[in-house]
Amino acid sequence: METSAQTKFPLVVIVGAGFGGLEVAKGLADKPVEVLMLDKHNYHVFQPLLYQVATGSLEAESIAFSIRKNFGSQKNFRFRIAEVMGIDAKTNTLDTTIGDIKYDYLVIATGSTTNFFGNKDIEHYAMPMKSIPEALNLRYLILQNLEEAVLQKTKEDREPYLNFVLVGAGPTGVELAGALAELRNHVLAKDYPELNKEHMNVYLVDFLPKVLGPMSDEASKGAKEFLVKMGVEVMLNTKVESYDGTTIKFEDGKTIRTRNVIWSAGVMGVIPKGITDEHIVRGNRIKTDAINRLEGFENIFAIGDVAAVITEDTPKGHPGVAQVAIQQGQQVAKNLVAIIKGEPTKPFKYFDKGSLATIGRNKAVADLGKIKFQGFFAWLIWMFVHLVSLLGFRNKIIVFINWIGSYINYNGGTRLIIRRFVRDDVPEDAKHLPQTES
Amino acid sequence: METSAQTKFPLVVIVGAGFGGLEVAKGLADKPVEVLMLDKHNYHVFQPLLYQVATGSLEAESIAFSIRKNFGSQKNFRFRIAEVMGIDAKTNTLDTTIGDIKYDYLVIATGSTTNFFGNKDIEHYAMPMKSIPEALNLRYLILQNLEEAVLQKTKEDREPYLNFVLVGAGPTGVELAGALAELRNHVLAKDYPELNKEHMNVYLVDFLPKVLGPMSDEASKGAKEFLVKMGVEVMLNTKVESYDGTTIKFEDGKTIRTRNVIWSAGVMGVIPKGITDEHIVRGNRIKTDAINRLEGFENIFAIGDVAAVITEDTPKGHPGVAQVAIQQGQQVAKNLVAIIKGEPTKPFKYFDKGSLATIGRNKAVADLGKIKFQGFFAWLIWMFVHLVSLLGFRNKIIVFINWIGSYINYNGGTRLIIRRFVRDDVPEDAKHLPQTES
Repeated sequence: METSAQTKFPLVVIVGAGFGGLEVAKGLADKPVEVLMLDKHNYHVFQPLLYQVATGSLEAESIAFSIRKNFGSQKNFRFRIAEVMGIDAKTNTLDTTIGDIKYDYLVIATGSTTNFFGNKDIEHYAMPMKSIPEALNLRYLILQNLEEAVLQKTKEDREPYLNFVLVGAGPTGVELAGALAELRNHVLAKDYPELNKEHMNVYLVDFLPKVLGPMSDEASKGAKEFLVKMGVEVMLNTKVESYDGTTIKFEDGKTIRTRNVIWSAGVMGVIPKGITDEHIVRGNRIKTDAINRLEGFENIFAIGDVAAVITEDTPKGHPGVAQVAIQQGQQVAKNLVAIIKGEPTKPFKYFDKGSLATIGRNKAVADLGKIKFQGFFAWLIWMFVHLVSLLGFRNKIIVFINWIGSYINYNGGTRLIIRRFVRDDVPEDAKHLPQTES
Repeated sequence: METSAQTKFPLVVIVGAGFGGLEVAKGLADKPVEVLMLDKHNYHVFQPLLYQVATGSLEAESIAFSIRKNFGSQKNFRFRIAEVMGIDAKTNTLDTTIGDIKYDYLVIATGSTTNFFGNKDIEHYAMPMKSIPEALNLRYLILQNLEEAVLQKTKEDREPYLNFVLVGAGPTGVELAGALAELRNHVLAKDYPELNKEHMNVYLVDFLPKVLGPMSDEASKGAKEFLVKMGVEVMLNTKVESYDGTTIKFEDGKTIRTRNVIWSAGVMGVIPKGITDEHIVRGNRIKTDAINRLEGFENIFAIGDVAAVITEDTPKGHPGVAQVAIQQGQQVAKNLVAIIKGEPTKPFKYFDKGSLATIGRNKAVADLGKIKFQGFFAWLIWMFVHLVSLLGFRNKIIVFINWIGSYINYNGGTRLIIRRFVRDDVPEDAKHLPQTES
């Protein structure tokens, strides 16, 4: 169906429209190549703000950007909604939901998904949050559980609906915990006169001894203080043993009755079939060389969360963060053009621009090289950086307005249940929510 | 569960959070009553702008407003997500998804739903558009079909995906037709380089001889001219015979191959069980007297689309428009207080403030009493009126930004497929769209 026979230019197929894939495509504008991008969805998600969609502060669509619209003016770019079911490296062919696609160069940029570490119960009952549908499902579950809580007659019945346990104290867990704490402290009693903040508990759990493990001690300490001040119970050095949908058990024997367990305790690469085991390393990532290429292949590259650039300097690859994916994407685009022109390529070198994490609606922690700070000023930087990186002027304005609204009065946001969310096998999920949907 | 025994005040239960229900609740603020509002959803929808959600110009959440947030400061107001399964007028009890609710006064404001006039095939295969999930499903179907069209190899294969047939040339049909024509004229070729406007056709069908039947001849003529100029094929005096998901047949024998039939050709009231036949009139509406009360009942009222105030002056009730619901809601609130205080009530008198309908992104037709105009100025009025009526300052700003964006360059909007939409039994709906959803 899609072949490069149509023009004299080589066809670069990019699988995945995340941060990395987008940069490759952008970097190939006006170059002597054809670009075909594939993604399961027709939009790019700005993942750092997913947690705000999950807690009803932002519309899902303000952090998503239509791929076709984004590349509308790039002449050598084509897009198809498709999923890659397999890769036949011998014949340079992708097996996809829209048929076979022959590539000249392949860039795998499929990102990562939630890692439940093999625990099937937790995978079944806990809520992940790495995509828009997952963030929306989480929002609906939270709001449904608040509605159910209002209907309960005793404290004991009410408890599981209002206990929120976040497993994984990385940026995602910390940011979610902060947002839930804001909901509890400032929105709950207003929206639900029958409830008050004493009824609701937010727990942040991690088996490590610090929150925001990859960040500095100052950032970690600052974040923990902010969280505790907001009323979050931070449980470190705590490992989850099991979760059955209503009670979560920890290895130290402690239990919490809860219908809200959000799992952001690990990620793993999303690898299309056809990449054989010798290319796969820890965390289910594809091992590549310094120019993001798979060993033994001239024309297959992998970037971003799904990849691990294994070199002497980086024996474990790089962190699974947006900047790595962006910079690798930019370098791969340049290297592809170099390869096509017969010029030398350049190895990937990560320039760490720093880390940011936000806690609640006006505090953040920032590690910017040697400079580290925590608090309101860090939050201004966080807001600025994220607004600038967000795709689309319209989206920037809409997100900005939402944030200003939330800053002025906590009561911003969009706490709407658009679709009833029910998990298989969870007793009484959305028990009282009307069945008919239209 | 919920009873009025808790306070000395009578309990007014309002079923439905549409325009009418909201006005009743608002009108009872600070009055000697308790108010309990029930709705299947936790938000109020600004229905006049649903068509923009369906065509990807607006986020769903910018036209929906959280009921709890809206009434947060009204002390005598409570809200529950619930569906009414039955009414037992003898015992003043509602049977609902959250248990039995005893009322002192009941206001039925459940609105209307799409009327397929008993045609089961059309109901099965055509797309209605009267709620947010329906508007979103329609948007996903439209975008999915554009993606499928890109994959087709021949004009014949492509045709059904790119033919759009709108049945019903009232305001909804006209506004959808205009929006689809804009998509065709200004967005299609940009987003889908493989397609161009000649490939896509928009048909607006009605069995009446004019578009916008209830409006003036000037409005009707103006709207038709604008539509035709935008490339819409207007088929009047045309009745639909059948639709099987891929071909629509008209009574004059003509057929159109299409996978996109949007039905806005009729509405009917949504009446909870327990209202017996003698109260129901044409269009499945509940017959009421001049104070919106059901005959034979002291304490049951019905307002808005679901009601028909049958009097000498209004033997057929009133049009199913927002202003009628709003004004009836306001009057019922006053009358309820009067009844409770033993004071005289006032019959409902509809003050027709006029009609507006928009065609495309900068034209409208307006009938404001004796004054009628069509074109850009009418559109400014339309925009102003709708922005003012929209609930929530944040929503107003977001909608305004979207409209300015679309006005400046047609390429505004949010054309994202968030969830794969598939109809049972429609051959090859979203055939190539990846199955996995997360």
